[in-house]
Amino acid sequence: MVTFCNLTYLGVRGDNLDEFADMTSEIDRVDGEIIDKASKRMDSLTKPKGSLGQLERLAIKVAGITGKLNPSLNHKYSFVFAGDHGVAAEGVSAYPQEVTVQMLANFIHEGAAINVLGNQVGSEVVVVDVGVASDDIPPSVIDEKINRGTDSFTGGPAMSREDALASVKVGYRVVEEVAETGLDLLGLGDMGIGNTTPSSAITAIMTDSKPEEVTGRGTGIDEESLREKIAVVEEGLEVNQPDPTDPLDVLSKVGGYEIGAIAGAYLAGAANNVPVLLDGFITTAGALIAHAIEPGVADYMIASHNSVERGHEAAHEKLGLDPLLDLNLRLGEGTGAALAMHLVQSGVSVLNDMYTFEEAGVSPGGS
Amino acid sequence: MVTFCNLTYLGVRGDNLDEFADMTSEIDRVDGEIIDKASKRMDSLTKPKGSLGQLERLAIKVAGITGKLNPSLNHKYSFVFAGDHGVAAEGVSAYPQEVTVQMLANFIHEGAAINVLGNQVGSEVVVVDVGVASDDIPPSVIDEKINRGTDSFTGGPAMSREDALASVKVGYRVVEEVAETGLDLLGLGDMGIGNTTPSSAITAIMTDSKPEEVTGRGTGIDEESLREKIAVVEEGLEVNQPDPTDPLDVLSKVGGYEIGAIAGAYLAGAANNVPVLLDGFITTAGALIAHAIEPGVADYMIASHNSVERGHEAAHEKLGLDPLLDLNLRLGEGTGAALAMHLVQSGVSVLNDMYTFEEAGVSPGGS
Repeated sequence: MVTFCNLTYLGVRGDNLDEFADMTSEIDRVDGEIIDKASKRMDSLTKPKGSLGQLERLAIKVAGITGKLNPSLNHKYSFVFAGDHGVAAEGVSAYPQEVTVQMLANFIHEGAAINVLGNQVGSEVVVVDVGVASDDIPPSVIDEKINRGTDSFTGGPAMSREDALASVKVGYRVVEEVAETGLDLLGLGDMGIGNTTPSSAITAIMTDSKPEEVTGRGTGIDEESLREKIAVVEEGLEVNQPDPTDPLDVLSKVGGYEIGAIAGAYLAGAANNVPVLLDGFITTAGALIAHAIEPGVADYMIASHNSVERGHEAAHEKLGLDPLLDLNLRLGEGTGAALAMHLVQSGVSVLNDMYTFEEAGVSPGGS
Repeated sequence: MVTFCNLTYLGVRGDNLDEFADMTSEIDRVDGEIIDKASKRMDSLTKPKGSLGQLERLAIKVAGITGKLNPSLNHKYSFVFAGDHGVAAEGVSAYPQEVTVQMLANFIHEGAAINVLGNQVGSEVVVVDVGVASDDIPPSVIDEKINRGTDSFTGGPAMSREDALASVKVGYRVVEEVAETGLDLLGLGDMGIGNTTPSSAITAIMTDSKPEEVTGRGTGIDEESLREKIAVVEEGLEVNQPDPTDPLDVLSKVGGYEIGAIAGAYLAGAANNVPVLLDGFITTAGALIAHAIEPGVADYMIASHNSVERGHEAAHEKLGLDPLLDLNLRLGEGTGAALAMHLVQSGVSVLNDMYTFEEAGVSPGGS
């Protein structure tokens, strides 16, 4: 791949980001010339200009990302990164920690929502264990386990700085490997009981918000548990004092293994000119880490939906992204990303397959 | 089909609605028992309760409409009803009237947006000429032409009461015929240069709104043309004084042939226990006519998207429907309905194919 890395555009990195150099050096600026050409073609098709709204913008964005005027999206993948969280012991979730590993089995038997929704768009589901607190992992899960769950961030860092970097590298590597065999559209997802709590901590520090503004009910806790969850996030930030200019400091102190892997997956998508769909709150927390590592990565991201989870909106705003769907989803696993793949595919098919006014012999409009 | 018509629920009809008796007698109440069973099954699946938001409600609604706990949506159809409008001569559109028939050819050659988006969801596109102002209609278009365009409603009624009734019957009949061979999900669409103008007139009278509140830019007119378009709608209502309690009076005086056919298509969908997807502003105008004929028909409707067109929201509100998508669409043809078919299919697949907590051996949550 030929790269034309524009440091002014892509942001000037601090010294503490040298650790990511091998993951960011391949990220180009998206192709402005193709964007212009795709916009012109879109306006020549037999419909009033702009009448397909966000679908048109989406197709043009994918053209710019892929560098192709007629992108093909034959190879779609949904990656589900899984990890456990020491902070789950603080009673922040409606579900016991054992559900994480039980759900891995459900993914492999194709009984979960991501299997059904991935199947609807022809997206292959890949499950990666980055930090599940169990040794009873189904064989088809990719084994990249760094540790058996994080430590609770209320007592100090969730993980070491080395392990945080390793988690980002895992996400980068597994996506890179698939890209070598063909990857046109990537959806990211998470599994990890308790993982909205570190996501709230990351979102608070990265969007400069108060914990209460970006902490929600996760899988469905009550009002009292929500107050306790907010207190846990506040305590984590107070104890650890993460530095927002140092993404690895934030990830290691208040993050999670699957969140680091998700961050790395964005970087790999961008490095391979692949559009990457965000999902719910955990994937936007990962996106905030990736964005702090390399701001240019946001140009390769597509926000699939606006979740019920408080804080999702602040994350999207920080990333400069406008979500496609608003269906009150709050499941995770990459389900919203899979749903939105249909919109991406539809927009691209419009760009590729519709007739122009000239081809169809239709009179162009007066305005 | 066994019918249990509940007149209290379905609304008491006035004498002037006897003309529709053969089209409304087969419309049942949706199946409450199946709705309860589908809701219970949805809550037993391996996800936090309610975490798939509107997708869950959608699947439960489809179960109620079809009367099936495991609905199959193998046979999808997108109907595009076409007609021309005398009022187009008043300069209300950015496109010349000849575009209506040119687009029919484009539909048949599969070069239009509805062809591309229908193809993405496996929906067959059927085009019906109800009132196009041309004799040069492509052979594959279903010929149900009632007249060569309406008269301009600024000089009196757009059509006769008999022709208005005939247009509703056309829509009913063509859908009924397809239903006999297999129809599981129906999307409605329109083609007709100038047809946002009669749609604004219908929406104004049926939602008790001022013309300026429900008249928009259609395919893309400028500010001055918009002011003139509003004046045209005001004039049509002033000249014709349509009676909102008499849907055939409204349709004949300020409607259009394709709008009448769309109204009939909703009734046929409901009579055959088929969920029917609305599209843009013209299809909600048809829905308001159908709803005035038979209020119970709204239970069979699914609002696909919230259009850019001013007035779409007032129509949805009157129908008690909450649109699924908000993508700044304003194309028509049934394109939004086709996009939303993916969400309907996805919701139904979740209901049919996901594992329960028990089947998957996953611990249920505490709340």
